[in-house]
Amino acid sequence: MTVGVNPTAACVAVGSELLGVHRLDSNSLAVTTMLARYGVTVIEKRVVGDSVEHLAATIRELFDRVDVVVLTGGLGPTEDDVTREAVARALRRDLEVDEEVADWIRARYADHDRAMPEICLRMARIVHGGRPLLNPRGAAPGMLVESDGRLVVALPGVPSEMEEMLERDLAPELERRFPAQRLVTRTLLLGGVYESQIEDRIAPLYRRFGREHVTILASCGVVRLLVSARGEGAAAAARVDDMVGAFRRLLGDDVAGVDVGGLAQVVLERLERRSETLAVAESCTGGLVSARLTDVPGASNAFLGGVVSYSNAAKENLVDVPRELLVEHGAVSEPAARAMAVGVRGRFGSDWGIGITGIAGPSGGTVDKPVGLVHWAVAGAEAVVADYRVFPGDRATVRLWSVHSALDLLRRRLDGQGRTHD
Amino acid sequence: MTVGVNPTAACVAVGSELLGVHRLDSNSLAVTTMLARYGVTVIEKRVVGDSVEHLAATIRELFDRVDVVVLTGGLGPTEDDVTREAVARALRRDLEVDEEVADWIRARYADHDRAMPEICLRMARIVHGGRPLLNPRGAAPGMLVESDGRLVVALPGVPSEMEEMLERDLAPELERRFPAQRLVTRTLLLGGVYESQIEDRIAPLYRRFGREHVTILASCGVVRLLVSARGEGAAAAARVDDMVGAFRRLLGDDVAGVDVGGLAQVVLERLERRSETLAVAESCTGGLVSARLTDVPGASNAFLGGVVSYSNAAKENLVDVPRELLVEHGAVSEPAARAMAVGVRGRFGSDWGIGITGIAGPSGGTVDKPVGLVHWAVAGAEAVVADYRVFPGDRATVRLWSVHSALDLLRRRLDGQGRTHD
Repeated sequence: MTVGVNPTAACVAVGSELLGVHRLDSNSLAVTTMLARYGVTVIEKRVVGDSVEHLAATIRELFDRVDVVVLTGGLGPTEDDVTREAVARALRRDLEVDEEVADWIRARYADHDRAMPEICLRMARIVHGGRPLLNPRGAAPGMLVESDGRLVVALPGVPSEMEEMLERDLAPELERRFPAQRLVTRTLLLGGVYESQIEDRIAPLYRRFGREHVTILASCGVVRLLVSARGEGAAAAARVDDMVGAFRRLLGDDVAGVDVGGLAQVVLERLERRSETLAVAESCTGGLVSARLTDVPGASNAFLGGVVSYSNAAKENLVDVPRELLVEHGAVSEPAARAMAVGVRGRFGSDWGIGITGIAGPSGGTVDKPVGLVHWAVAGAEAVVADYRVFPGDRATVRLWSVHSALDLLRRRLDGQGRTHD
Repeated sequence: MTVGVNPTAACVAVGSELLGVHRLDSNSLAVTTMLARYGVTVIEKRVVGDSVEHLAATIRELFDRVDVVVLTGGLGPTEDDVTREAVARALRRDLEVDEEVADWIRARYADHDRAMPEICLRMARIVHGGRPLLNPRGAAPGMLVESDGRLVVALPGVPSEMEEMLERDLAPELERRFPAQRLVTRTLLLGGVYESQIEDRIAPLYRRFGREHVTILASCGVVRLLVSARGEGAAAAARVDDMVGAFRRLLGDDVAGVDVGGLAQVVLERLERRSETLAVAESCTGGLVSARLTDVPGASNAFLGGVVSYSNAAKENLVDVPRELLVEHGAVSEPAARAMAVGVRGRFGSDWGIGITGIAGPSGGTVDKPVGLVHWAVAGAEAVVADYRVFPGDRATVRLWSVHSALDLLRRRLDGQGRTHD
């Protein structure tokens, strides 16, 4: 392989089932991530069916274009599993039974007290000159073959098997070939930040560090900034730490954490560290905030529960919002959000309460209270703070914005921030 | 194009952003679905970056293999938008400004009271002999070019634009070319059915109708059976109706609906038709049932709300589960699930109540009550019914099984079914 400055790769997913109307190949994301870590750029992806000729032609075409071809799938024992044969044809080499692999496959069946079907020996056939890659989680071995300085790697299609072999077999190979290309990445999680503003806000650092080292992933009020540097491991890590520091100084309180999960996890960790608890009253989000929180294992250490007060009666009877308040201000109002936060906190006896009420759409909007209007509030021992916005987008988008906004307001309170409409 | 028995196609997504570690091309699913409707089988998918040479070579390679090449993306006005140029090079034709398209683009800017940047005229360039496809939702036109009986279609990468043009422009073209190939599909939604059983249960019909006409999509207790037939429209529709009838007779009460949304929507529609209401008490699902229900626009017509009684105190105080019951049977028990369903029904004054309690994991299991054990119950005016199971899989999987199982038990009650542990 040319140890070039910019080695390139292609991912090929093999399997007719990946060409139907229901499934996408997603293995290529894991492969791309791993290759990027060693400076290898994916310039093409393909999905092809279970045809030897088609796959062999694919490999030949890609060998004219890239340094590394990573194939996933098609390594099982049946006639439909064509990857081994296609690699052999593309490289014009023979397939040979590798006796060690054959023994390993036999032993695997013996361990499970099963007789090995003769057909399984097909999986022991390796392209002449190639290196077999034993599968730690399944029967089908992969292989790694070099040809004219280029590399073709065949991995199983089952994601867990593929990912383990990617780390165990391909990573060291790439590390050896491209030692100075290592990519180190860290992720800043930002809450309460809008897509439209983030580019402008980080423009100075974008210029300073280079656009190619900063990736923005934004979704309904949550922004992830991925900062990366390439080079020998320790040096790259140090450079990334500098970048993280610079972004932290620039973005201040908007940074919810570095290399953390989502806002729900951040909030739960903050609460658990303080030995405090939370309860949630939701209207337009209809249980999504609770569902997000309870997605996190161990959520019960800090999350006591919630009320989905979808009807006005539920707001009165289960979280003690006074009827007069609902009559005077309406169910979608700042006073209602505040009363829900206070009420659910009281009902559950929690340290913190969240209240959310809004109009997720598509219907239910008025001139004064349009679709997308959402009020949220956080009640603590000392104060109740509230905020609101008219969110853009469809029902699902408005709900997601609302979830993120409410969790971020609590996150800021837990961080001791005062930036609210209180 | 050869109006063959089995016309083939390839999908190409154009854009370097689709080759990174965060995004997948998903446009190809909509394209594949549309092509399948007219009997055109996708035999290859590719993703390539914004390189004219690379894309032109791609189109040439695919023209050796398939009848239809559908390109998505790369049609904007910038230098990075290479699709027009690549099609021209691949077919060895010129690009020519189409004056009608140019006028349309100018008018589009005028309508928005904006001056058209000169660069936008690039989008009016069409491959010689091709037909421009005006974009109903955006500025970038697509095009349709025939060459040696083969077809290349370029569509924008924005999904909503692409999907509309797929229906408006490509569908009639395919209908004209392949009138006898039309595929008609209907979907049966099954609840309370396990993946492992469904193949055996439908085996007789699988054989009778042919495997290629039945697709099983199973996910955590919900199964979708897609049945399809190919041929002239009315005849194919009649055959599919026969198949739907046969599956209904075979599967009986397990069929929740045909061509409907998910279980949440089915349940809400049944409730609304009966002018009845629902409230939900959730423990291990932590708000997911409520979130699913409130995903559906208009859910408030039947769904009054719910309680996420994650803590024992919440079970006592908010849904009136007696403390003695919790002490005697534990929070994860059939009596607790029943009491939650009854309690939440009482609190909300609803016609129906659902209660769910279980151990989603990864920790919290015991020998008697392992991770995955979930009890659920449905309380109505006349009876409380309950069921339970030890679900396999991780936290998210157990939660999803639980949501589906509880909704399906209610669905069966609303259908007047008695199959329960009552």
